Amino acid sequence: MDFMPGMGYDSAITIFSPEGRLFQVEYAIEAIRRGTTAIGLKVGGVGAVLTIEKRILSKLVAADSIEKIFKIDEHIGAAIAGLTADARVLINRARITAQIHRLTYDERISVEVLTREIGDLMQLYTQYAGVRPFGVKLLIAGVDDTGSHLFMTDPSGTHIGYRAAVIGAGEQKATEVLEQGYKPDLDLDGMILLSLSALKQAIESELDASKVEIAVIAEEERKFKKLSVEEIANYVERET
Amino acid sequence: MDFMPGMGYDSAITIFSPEGRLFQVEYAIEAIRRGTTAIGLKVGGVGAVLTIEKRILSKLVAADSIEKIFKIDEHIGAAIAGLTADARVLINRARITAQIHRLTYDERISVEVLTREIGDLMQLYTQYAGVRPFGVKLLIAGVDDTGSHLFMTDPSGTHIGYRAAVIGAGEQKATEVLEQGYKPDLDLDGMILLSLSALKQAIESELDASKVEIAVIAEEERKFKKLSVEEIANYVERET
Amino acid sequence: MDFMPGMGYDSAITIFSPEGRLFQVEYAIEAIRRGTTAIGLKVGGVGAVLTIEKRILSKLVAADSIEKIFKIDEHIGAAIAGLTADARVLINRARITAQIHRLTYDERISVEVLTREIGDLMQLYTQYAGVRPFGVKLLIAGVDDTGSHLFMTDPSGTHIGYRAAVIGAGEQKATEVLEQGYKPDLDLDGMILLSLSALKQAIESELDASKVEIAVIAEEERKFKKLSVEEIANYVERET
Amino acid sequence: MDFMPGMGYDSAITIFSPEGRLFQVEYAIEAIRRGTTAIGLKVGGVGAVLTIEKRILSKLVAADSIEKIFKIDEHIGAAIAGLTADARVLINRARITAQIHRLTYDERISVEVLTREIGDLMQLYTQYAGVRPFGVKLLIAGVDDTGSHLFMTDPSGTHIGYRAAVIGAGEQKATEVLEQGYKPDLDLDGMILLSLSALKQAIESELDASKVEIAVIAEEERKFKKLSVEEIANYVERET
Amino acid sequence: MDFMPGMGYDSAITIFSPEGRLFQVEYAIEAIRRGTTAIGLKVGGVGAVLTIEKRILSKLVAADSIEKIFKIDEHIGAAIAGLTADARVLINRARITAQIHRLTYDERISVEVLTREIGDLMQLYTQYAGVRPFGVKLLIAGVDDTGSHLFMTDPSGTHIGYRAAVIGAGEQKATEVLEQGYKPDLDLDGMILLSLSALKQAIESELDASKVEIAVIAEEERKFKKLSVEEIANYVERET
Amino acid sequence: MDFMPGMGYDSAITIFSPEGRLFQVEYAIEAIRRGTTAIGLKVGGVGAVLTIEKRILSKLVAADSIEKIFKIDEHIGAAIAGLTADARVLINRARITAQIHRLTYDERISVEVLTREIGDLMQLYTQYAGVRPFGVKLLIAGVDDTGSHLFMTDPSGTHIGYRAAVIGAGEQKATEVLEQGYKPDLDLDGMILLSLSALKQAIESELDASKVEIAVIAEEERKFKKLSVEEIANYVERET
Amino acid sequence: MDFMPGMGYDSAITIFSPEGRLFQVEYAIEAIRRGTTAIGLKVGGVGAVLTIEKRILSKLVAADSIEKIFKIDEHIGAAIAGLTADARVLINRARITAQIHRLTYDERISVEVLTREIGDLMQLYTQYAGVRPFGVKLLIAGVDDTGSHLFMTDPSGTHIGYRAAVIGAGEQKATEVLEQGYKPDLDLDGMILLSLSALKQAIESELDASKVEIAVIAEEERKFKKLSVEEIANYVERET
Repeated sequence: MDFMPGMGYDSAITIFSPEGRLFQVEYAIEAIRRGTTAIGLKVGGVGAVLTIEKRILSKLVAADSIEKIFKIDEHIGAAIAGLTADARVLINRARITAQIHRLTYDERISVEVLTREIGDLMQLYTQYAGVRPFGVKLLIAGVDDTGSHLFMTDPSGTHIGYRAAVIGAGEQKATEVLEQGYKPDLDLDGMILLSLSALKQAIESELDASKVEIAVIAEEERKFKKLSVEEIANYVERET
Repeated sequence: MDFMPGMGYDSAITIFSPEGRLFQVEYAIEAIRRGTTAIGLKVGGVGAVLTIEKRILSKLVAADSIEKIFKIDEHIGAAIAGLTADARVLINRARITAQIHRLTYDERISVEVLTREIGDLMQLYTQYAGVRPFGVKLLIAGVDDTGSHLFMTDPSGTHIGYRAAVIGAGEQKATEVLEQGYKPDLDLDGMILLSLSALKQAIESELDASKVEIAVIAEEERKFKKLSVEEIANYVERET
Repeated sequence: MDFMPGMGYDSAITIFSPEGRLFQVEYAIEAIRRGTTAIGLKVGGVGAVLTIEKRILSKLVAADSIEKIFKIDEHIGAAIAGLTADARVLINRARITAQIHRLTYDERISVEVLTREIGDLMQLYTQYAGVRPFGVKLLIAGVDDTGSHLFMTDPSGTHIGYRAAVIGAGEQKATEVLEQGYKPDLDLDGMILLSLSALKQAIESELDASKVEIAVIAEEERKFKKLSVEEIANYVERET
Repeated sequence: MDFMPGMGYDSAITIFSPEGRLFQVEYAIEAIRRGTTAIGLKVGGVGAVLTIEKRILSKLVAADSIEKIFKIDEHIGAAIAGLTADARVLINRARITAQIHRLTYDERISVEVLTREIGDLMQLYTQYAGVRPFGVKLLIAGVDDTGSHLFMTDPSGTHIGYRAAVIGAGEQKATEVLEQGYKPDLDLDGMILLSLSALKQAIESELDASKVEIAVIAEEERKFKKLSVEEIANYVERET
Repeated sequence: MDFMPGMGYDSAITIFSPEGRLFQVEYAIEAIRRGTTAIGLKVGGVGAVLTIEKRILSKLVAADSIEKIFKIDEHIGAAIAGLTADARVLINRARITAQIHRLTYDERISVEVLTREIGDLMQLYTQYAGVRPFGVKLLIAGVDDTGSHLFMTDPSGTHIGYRAAVIGAGEQKATEVLEQGYKPDLDLDGMILLSLSALKQAIESELDASKVEIAVIAEEERKFKKLSVEEIANYVERET
Repeated sequence: MDFMPGMGYDSAITIFSPEGRLFQVEYAIEAIRRGTTAIGLKVGGVGAVLTIEKRILSKLVAADSIEKIFKIDEHIGAAIAGLTADARVLINRARITAQIHRLTYDERISVEVLTREIGDLMQLYTQYAGVRPFGVKLLIAGVDDTGSHLFMTDPSGTHIGYRAAVIGAGEQKATEVLEQGYKPDLDLDGMILLSLSALKQAIESELDASKVEIAVIAEEERKFKKLSVEEIANYVERET
Repeated sequence: MDFMPGMGYDSAITIFSPEGRLFQVEYAIEAIRRGTTAIGLKVGGVGAVLTIEKRILSKLVAADSIEKIFKIDEHIGAAIAGLTADARVLINRARITAQIHRLTYDERISVEVLTREIGDLMQLYTQYAGVRPFGVKLLIAGVDDTGSHLFMTDPSGTHIGYRAAVIGAGEQKATEVLEQGYKPDLDLDGMILLSLSALKQAIESELDASKVEIAVIAEEERKFKKLSVEEIANYVERET
């Protein structure tokens, strides 16, 4: 850390620095850089996959209580990196948004519309005083009438679509693996194996099936499904 | 940047410096200077054109998810430079304003009235405590009963009409091209080619059709229309 | 600018300095000193004239989109200097105030009553926390049952009546011309020519009819009327 | 001005300094010391007189638009010194208070009750955060069932009754004249001449009838009446 | 005054210093120490007396307009020291409280209950942000079903009963006189003479009947009564 | 006091210092350490006793007006140390809480439930901005269906049950006496004598019956009862 | 403590430091590190146990009034470490949440749903201005339809499931004992003995049954039950 990193422009909430930067948003992103790694992939015509690392700090922790991939609706899920409690606020909101859409229009919400609503909420926390930005990034993956989608939102409220994306501590290393390994003709198995390969690189150690969480939304079924520990173990073994 | 650029007048929201400047507004404009370039042109009797550069930072990004030109209503569109999430707030508001106008008066909103409403909203964020200005400039283009129009709004809430205008990182370089090339007898093709030429100058590299977005509102049709990648590729080729 | 111009009394909104000054109001006036020049004249029995300089920074600007003289009601107009977006808030309010008066009393609002309402609004922004003063001066001109009137409001909310007044960057130079040339027996033509003469002095260059805006409210007609470019060109020629 | 006049106790709104002083109130009084001079007199059985200096900074100002003596109700008037726009807020309130009293009790409000209401309002602005004190002193004069009255209110909200009082820049000099010349057997003419004599001393120059405003409330008529320029000129001549 | 008297604990409203002191309350008491002197006495079976010094700064002041002893209800009065405008807020509240009590219970409010309500109000202004404490002490005297009472409230909201008490600039000197002269068998005359004797000591000069205000509430009558100037003059003469 | 005791963590309301301390709460406790001493005792099967020192600063004070032990309900009383005006707010609330309980459930409130409600209120003032903690500790004593109880609440809102407790300036010295003298087989007389003995030690001087206040709630009667001066004098004599 | 531990990022409520840390949350955790130790265990098919140390600072304290384990509902309990008054707010909320669930769905709330609601409440206090985080950690234990559960919430609002967990001053030492002694085949007796063994290590002294509190929720009964002092004494003896 430099001597006076923000020269005072970083202490007040939501104001611009002379260079036009919003420091609180940048610092919130730092909180995410220290979080666990989450990886998302989507392949048109096939589906989307979310994979995360469970960082279990003590053997006394009940590993199954640590959840970083959440079902939002039948056809959409989200993986998080950053402050877990902040993320829960957004996940709750996403679930309610999806339910309201179903009730209002009698149809599934599109992945982008849902993502935009969450991004709009996050933006509010960067423009008004009396709040701080959310210290979390989301990977929102799903299958809707326009196919498979993967979006990333960040604390500024921006959302961008990806074919493959990483958030959290392993962002840089895992992204390199994805850039080399991603191909538009991957099938679900290939996507899962690639994400595990990227995760292994990110955490710099052998994979332990009990410390990995994987969710899949296949275009055929349009259903969010978490893999069992056995299924994950199977993929971990194949990945090696 | 000087040592103490604002001597404290820039830290509090919305107050004047001794020279009568509003630093938060000026810093917001800095945020826009670091944004992607957007170009607008209009020719009386012909129509208006919006062209933007898609800055795609990773090959894993889904290029089609990056949208910086938005349809506001049948006859109006807007291109943005600056903080994307901030811009979305204004785009949402513009769309609602246009719809309310249709419902209330059973007619299309004029381009200037719409622009003024957005400018008035932006002004509010420069005079009241507890908020920061919007970190975004908009180019609002459209065709209404009084012909073709192109307006630019900035974070102070000011709006000015232009025949051709540039916002974002490439402002200076692209403006030079427009000043030399703009003629009041350009047809749509000429307008598109001129905007591509200006964009090329702004980004200082060859154009890649997949990283350009173009929208057209012709006076004949009065319909906002985005060009397909093929159409853009065709123009890119001709421009060279 | 001195080293510590306000010794801290200028950073907090709306508080007095030990000398009883309101710095935020004084700094707002600085913003106006950097604005374009506007000139107003009134002659009893004849009418009132508003003249402004259009400062057009680029040849790509649509000159007709730059508006600094506004019709408030049939019989009243206003010219502005300072922050355009701030001014629009006041112009909107003035128009609504005039309409409400018409609807409530079935008569035209008097120029002074309208001016006082706008001044009262501006005063509020100097006494309450959470807002900044308006960075704008207005010249409000009109003809009502008591004759022709010209008022100036400043950011403190004070309003004063004038026979001839200048706001904006050219205040000092143009005022000298008016002080020498103003006579109570000027006719409308004489008023317009005098205002152009003052404007020329203010901007220190030859006048360009396309960069001047003139509005007239004659006592005979009691109607706010903007001159056409041709009419202005004609006066510019005669002025020289 | 000393180096650090208030050691920080003067920057925050409405708090006490260690000596039990309210600096914002004292600084507001400084604003009044720089204002134009206003003089009030009352003589039991005769009536009350208000006299002010019109400080006209330019010959282009419409002298009749400068008003510093206001009719509050049939039988009460007020002269002001300090920030004109602040004063207008209090004058408006005083007028409404008097009207409400008439409507509620079907009688004229007493001068002291009216003064107390205005003082109570001014006090509020010294005890609550988010506002600054009013930068104005009022001389409230009138005739009610208990005779002639003259009150002065200051920014702390205090009101004191006077037989003769001065506010504004000429306070000290004019007070000396009044102390020497005031007699309880003055008639209206004598009161007016004494106030002009005091005003002359205050402004340190010959009096100009067009730059003086005088209002009279005689006990016989109980009606607030402003003198015409001719009447004033007549008194000015006699005073010399 | 020491160099940094409160080390910052005195600038923020209503917070504790490390020694558990509330500086704003202590500074408010300083404001009272600079106020005019007020003296109260009560003798069981006889009644209560309030005496104050009128500090008249100019011979132009209408002495009868200066009021520092107020009737609260038929049987209760109050004398004040400190900021007059602050005191008026409390006096208004006390009068309303007494009236509400009469209307609700059809009986006179007891002196202590009234005092407690005023103290509770004053306490609020020491615990909440956005306000400052009241800069005033009250001596509340009256006769109710439990006899004669005299209470003092201070800016912290504390109230204490006294047989004789002094507030304001002369507190120390006048208290000494009261401590020596107070006897539980004083009659009303004796109480008035003792209070005048204490007042003389406090103001360190001969007494002037026109600059003294005295109010009496005798147990026999249970009626608040102000003495006339003649009655006061008579006592002043006897006191000497 | 150290040089910079809280390094800034003590100036803002209700925030944690790096050591996890709430300075405002600790400073409030300092205010109590400077208050008068209050002592409470309870013995199962016998009852509870509250004893306080009346610190009378002047012989002119009406000693009977100083009240530091308050009846809350028939069966509960409270003694206070710290800011008297703050305490009154809590006592008022406690009385209302007890009455509401009676009206709602037609039974006497339990001592612990009442104490918890008061503690919950005090906690609020340590977690929200815009207020300061209460500068007071309470000893709440009473007899309910579960026997005799004595609770102490402090500014953090914590409440703890005691067999014997001291608050205020004499806390340390009186506590030593209680620790040595408290026995579970004390009768009411013994409890009163022990509390007087502790009080004597706390104030370091002979006891004066007129400067002591004692309240008793015996289990037999379940009635809060204050002792008369004669009864206290009797105990004081026996204590010696 | 370092010289400037947070360089200013720790004084404002709820904002990020440049490293993405929320200092107020971290400081709140310090408050907990100074609190008493609480231990929780759960074994699938058997139940859950909560054990705490009662830190009794004086022999005059009524030990039974110190409660750090609370029944939330029939089947759920919670142990606390940190600020007791803060904890009470959360315990009250938890009880109400459980009751509302019963009334709304006519079923027992699941342990995780309850925990999540409390965590969501705690998160709010880390993102909004005007409040401070809760200075408390909770161990929430219970048995529901999915078996035995033990959750820990911290001031950030995060909740994690554990098989065994420690909060408070003895966290580190007691955790070591649990890590070594926890086995998935412990019965209730074994769980209690292990928790006592851990507690002994944490407080570094022999256990005193009167200073320990134990609560058990067995899967068979699904009922929260506190052990009597006798039962605890029995376990303490066995543990040794």
